[in-house]
Amino acid sequence: MKVAIPAAQPFSKSLKYCLKETFFPDDPLRQFKNQPPSKTFLLALQYLFPVFQWAPRYSLHFFKSDLIAGITIASLAIPQGISYAKLANLPPILGLYSSFVPPLIYAMMGSSRDLAVGTVAVGSLLMASMLGRAVNPNDNPTLYLHLAFTATFFAGILQASLGFFRLGFIVDFLSHATIVGFMGGAATVVCLQQLKSILGLEHFTHEADLVSVMRSVFTQTHEWRWESAVLGCAFIFFLLITRYFSKRQPKFFWVSAMAPLTSVILGSILVYVTHAEKHGVQVIGELKKGLNPVSLPNLVFKAPYMGTAIKTGLVTGIIALAEGIAVGRSFAMYKNYHIDGNKEMIAIGTMNVVGSFTSCYLTTGPFSRSAVNYNAGCKTAVSNIVMAIAVMLTLLFLTPLFHYTPLVVLSAIIVSAMLGLIDYEAAIHLYKIDKFDFLVCLTAYVGVVFGSVEIGLVIAVAISVLRVLLFVARPRTFVLGNIPNSEVYRNVEQYPNANHVAGMLILEIDAPIYFANASYLRERITRWIDDEEDRIKGMGETNLQYVILDMTAIGNIDTSGISMLEEVKKTAERRGLQLVLVNPGSEVMKKMNKAKLVEKIGQKWIYLTVEEAVGACNFMLHTCKANPRKDESEVWNNV
Amino acid sequence: MKVAIPAAQPFSKSLKYCLKETFFPDDPLRQFKNQPPSKTFLLALQYLFPVFQWAPRYSLHFFKSDLIAGITIASLAIPQGISYAKLANLPPILGLYSSFVPPLIYAMMGSSRDLAVGTVAVGSLLMASMLGRAVNPNDNPTLYLHLAFTATFFAGILQASLGFFRLGFIVDFLSHATIVGFMGGAATVVCLQQLKSILGLEHFTHEADLVSVMRSVFTQTHEWRWESAVLGCAFIFFLLITRYFSKRQPKFFWVSAMAPLTSVILGSILVYVTHAEKHGVQVIGELKKGLNPVSLPNLVFKAPYMGTAIKTGLVTGIIALAEGIAVGRSFAMYKNYHIDGNKEMIAIGTMNVVGSFTSCYLTTGPFSRSAVNYNAGCKTAVSNIVMAIAVMLTLLFLTPLFHYTPLVVLSAIIVSAMLGLIDYEAAIHLYKIDKFDFLVCLTAYVGVVFGSVEIGLVIAVAISVLRVLLFVARPRTFVLGNIPNSEVYRNVEQYPNANHVAGMLILEIDAPIYFANASYLRERITRWIDDEEDRIKGMGETNLQYVILDMTAIGNIDTSGISMLEEVKKTAERRGLQLVLVNPGSEVMKKMNKAKLVEKIGQKWIYLTVEEAVGACNFMLHTCKANPRKDESEVWNNV
Repeated sequence: MKVAIPAAQPFSKSLKYCLKETFFPDDPLRQFKNQPPSKTFLLALQYLFPVFQWAPRYSLHFFKSDLIAGITIASLAIPQGISYAKLANLPPILGLYSSFVPPLIYAMMGSSRDLAVGTVAVGSLLMASMLGRAVNPNDNPTLYLHLAFTATFFAGILQASLGFFRLGFIVDFLSHATIVGFMGGAATVVCLQQLKSILGLEHFTHEADLVSVMRSVFTQTHEWRWESAVLGCAFIFFLLITRYFSKRQPKFFWVSAMAPLTSVILGSILVYVTHAEKHGVQVIGELKKGLNPVSLPNLVFKAPYMGTAIKTGLVTGIIALAEGIAVGRSFAMYKNYHIDGNKEMIAIGTMNVVGSFTSCYLTTGPFSRSAVNYNAGCKTAVSNIVMAIAVMLTLLFLTPLFHYTPLVVLSAIIVSAMLGLIDYEAAIHLYKIDKFDFLVCLTAYVGVVFGSVEIGLVIAVAISVLRVLLFVARPRTFVLGNIPNSEVYRNVEQYPNANHVAGMLILEIDAPIYFANASYLRERITRWIDDEEDRIKGMGETNLQYVILDMTAIGNIDTSGISMLEEVKKTAERRGLQLVLVNPGSEVMKKMNKAKLVEKIGQKWIYLTVEEAVGACNFMLHTCKANPRKDESEVWNNV
Repeated sequence: MKVAIPAAQPFSKSLKYCLKETFFPDDPLRQFKNQPPSKTFLLALQYLFPVFQWAPRYSLHFFKSDLIAGITIASLAIPQGISYAKLANLPPILGLYSSFVPPLIYAMMGSSRDLAVGTVAVGSLLMASMLGRAVNPNDNPTLYLHLAFTATFFAGILQASLGFFRLGFIVDFLSHATIVGFMGGAATVVCLQQLKSILGLEHFTHEADLVSVMRSVFTQTHEWRWESAVLGCAFIFFLLITRYFSKRQPKFFWVSAMAPLTSVILGSILVYVTHAEKHGVQVIGELKKGLNPVSLPNLVFKAPYMGTAIKTGLVTGIIALAEGIAVGRSFAMYKNYHIDGNKEMIAIGTMNVVGSFTSCYLTTGPFSRSAVNYNAGCKTAVSNIVMAIAVMLTLLFLTPLFHYTPLVVLSAIIVSAMLGLIDYEAAIHLYKIDKFDFLVCLTAYVGVVFGSVEIGLVIAVAISVLRVLLFVARPRTFVLGNIPNSEVYRNVEQYPNANHVAGMLILEIDAPIYFANASYLRERITRWIDDEEDRIKGMGETNLQYVILDMTAIGNIDTSGISMLEEVKKTAERRGLQLVLVNPGSEVMKKMNKAKLVEKIGQKWIYLTVEEAVGACNFMLHTCKANPRKDESEVWNNV
């Protein structure tokens, strides 16, 4: 059997295929195939606004579940929203605003049924640290606030464009290991920041790294307030206990979901009764009544601050997106429905853009809140609408109740949420299965905790990209041997009983040959030949005569790869060896043919299976040995 | 036959293997194995200074060849050196200095026998454009000169450290296609710059892009000097004619090699006789007699200029290194000897560091000069020593002769050298074999010509890296079919006669499964299943029951890849399909085992060959069909 050279395709066709695989691997237009125009319009509408897809089938039964889930997440959203807004150095009310408008947008456009929309701790912290470098939130709170809206706007624009241009796969380059390390580090940093309110400190470092925080904490031990510390520890303990209980008894998920709101109520009552606000326990204070004011005119599009806003928007936008997409995908997997990552990005982006016009800051689908939503039995995005209505009612009528809420309770809520993000079990899992993944995870963690959130992020992304580059630059090569009593040839390292074939070196290359690995592979093949000749010298076996390259796993090749093969052929010839190729794939065969390499190597030295190649080489070896005068071409004529 | 799970290795061993393959793929210490200490010392000395390796075997016969080659390249080096120094806005004498010290260093440390050391046009232009942005070479020539030395110093440090830390593979990421485009673009830009001297213009744009240069040239047509233009065109014509002649008649290689020096002599005589320097033909003027002065104390290690020098050094250093290594490797290939890229980097780096102490600027192994050296029959690096001595004699006695050399001749020399670098044939070759490579090449070219050299370089590197990332992110997957009358399963696209196997979908994944492609592959496999089910629906064949993944080509997997396989298994189960794996490699099997995926999938669903897997599935299909009551486990018990 001959190795087939595929028919030449027009360039436009292969380009189309390549673009399709790059940008439309999930084939989102599949459903539009062969549909009448009216149906196409409906499908398109449903595609952009999934609400039109599920709303007609919505039932009272669904609504009951969604109502419970919505109220549950609202009770979590209100205290968390206020806490995270404080973390971002923004007015606490912004946390409530951000839990009102964005969930409504997402309910229209999002395709996840389980995602609960809201602000996130890591995004809030990042925003505070990046914007805080340009504007001091205490000196100029208005400008700082406007920059936060602007950053949210740009984050939304970025997210929506990534989705629109179908570049969602960029998020894939943040590997799972990177995210585990980064999130764990960010959670640690966020917890450290809470020491300020828990210890009731007035002055605190502006740095977020472990060393600065520890120095700041331990240089002012005399400023520690025991009232605050006792309150904080008590609430952390309470929250952790409820979480532990809910984990053990999943039926009582609402216990841990309600715990933050309960803490807020308890804390507020305690302060109100004891007047603790006059004894060093800081409280939220006045919260304005009323719905989100319009913030569109507040967006800053002028130098020198716009640059900072854009940078902050891009970084926080990507991080928030990665979390939202990952959360949406995980729950979709559990419930066995499909999520289009690019469409989700458009939904999340739009919700942030609209949010930035209505006094909201960066939102996404946080893991903790979505998990509560899922456990509470949500059926559709209606639970987000219920949450938004609950928040709206709070904004309209209940804000005065938060006047006496102590900040230390908010800190306790943050700490207990963050401790769940430090996923040490995942890190142990990584350590067991793949040490390199663990290293990536650890580096990201250390970078965040000892450097800063941005440094950790940059390091994590750099390592991820470096890893991809290294994967490509240093592919594996194996020597194949014959598995006894079969015609199967496999890696001799994995199958120690596989036998070397006398006079032949059978190599398998496990990666596409590209510019990035061409010179490595050339050197590696030479070294395999050297090693094999050394081995033979010691054993007194038949001299090496054939180098057989199993190209099954070489999916693709570029021009550098072709030159590399030419060079390997030359090197082999100079050492008196014949190069034999086995099973080149369609792309490889096409390019080798165009580059005339098939002719140069000779079609007769290209086989479909290793078995055939070995058979032919064995035949040549024995015929030539039996009759050394006959030269190869004669033997070939007789075959 | 069972798929073997390789014995667990200690982490230290696999780390050692990994580090070795990453940093020592060429096994440079191979020769030191099992040697007595004295021999080891000699080998180490020879390793660092290859001169000790070849000098003892040096013969008079070799010297004759080297003498001729050395004189030939000196005659090219002197005018080229002066020209390129002008291009870098440096005093012309620096070109001569740079052809004296660095070749001597290289002759000791370099392992190439054909590399001729000298300055390069692209490096000179880059240095001018990057340093020129910080310091105007006309306003502050001394500072500019010192910065050039400093940049050379840092370039050398970078080059030597890359070699020392065995990071030479970084250079591999500049693909051949990128270099063709970048070099062509840089050559075009350098040629455009020569319009200034050829047209005898006084004022000229400081930008290097096509648009600015053309605007500058055509807005001052009244300033064009015909004397200069005629002289320039005549010399370009002369140089091109001699080159064409030498190419046709390789025996007369010296004709084109001597042509630049001849042009300089002819031009100088012409100017001296006609006093053309008083009629608008600019000349070099005074050149100082004497050898290289020491420039070590001139290096600038202070802000604000040190940053610029470092940046310039890094960029020009990498570019120069890429050219030097590529040239060295190419000629080593022709003559069949081996070059250690990392060792070469140390040699080139050291020569630049020492050069920066002795009034030299950036040198490497330019292609044109090395080609002349090769054609002239050089045998060893002694030709570089001969060239250095010839340049030394020129510096000591002949510099006054260059007083009347017209700049336009230097421009003609540059233009004729640069035209050779625009390798349109290579671009056509790329177009024919790999359209994407051609695109990369074109983008680099356009970036350099219409943007700037740095923009082009950044774009080129970015595209190269992006390409690697895309390679990894979007691997190929194929459906396999049975080739008639055989038990071989191959890609149905490449072998259109291969038959689908009823009830089974056999997929081959052609790449390692990593975080970067895990979600793509998950979606792609789902789509293959969808497509196959659609196809079957149309044909009325047996329902799909087995998804067979041929994992032969999956060289490696990470934790994201493992999760992806788990998800594929779940998806398959939900659709009533059984996932079957074929021939996972040692790394994959090891990690699947650690993650307990082997248990989850079931050892009985993992086969060594596609043939066996199909056989087992067929057996199951028919047994179940014949006896639908029997469930699978019973059948298995009977197997």
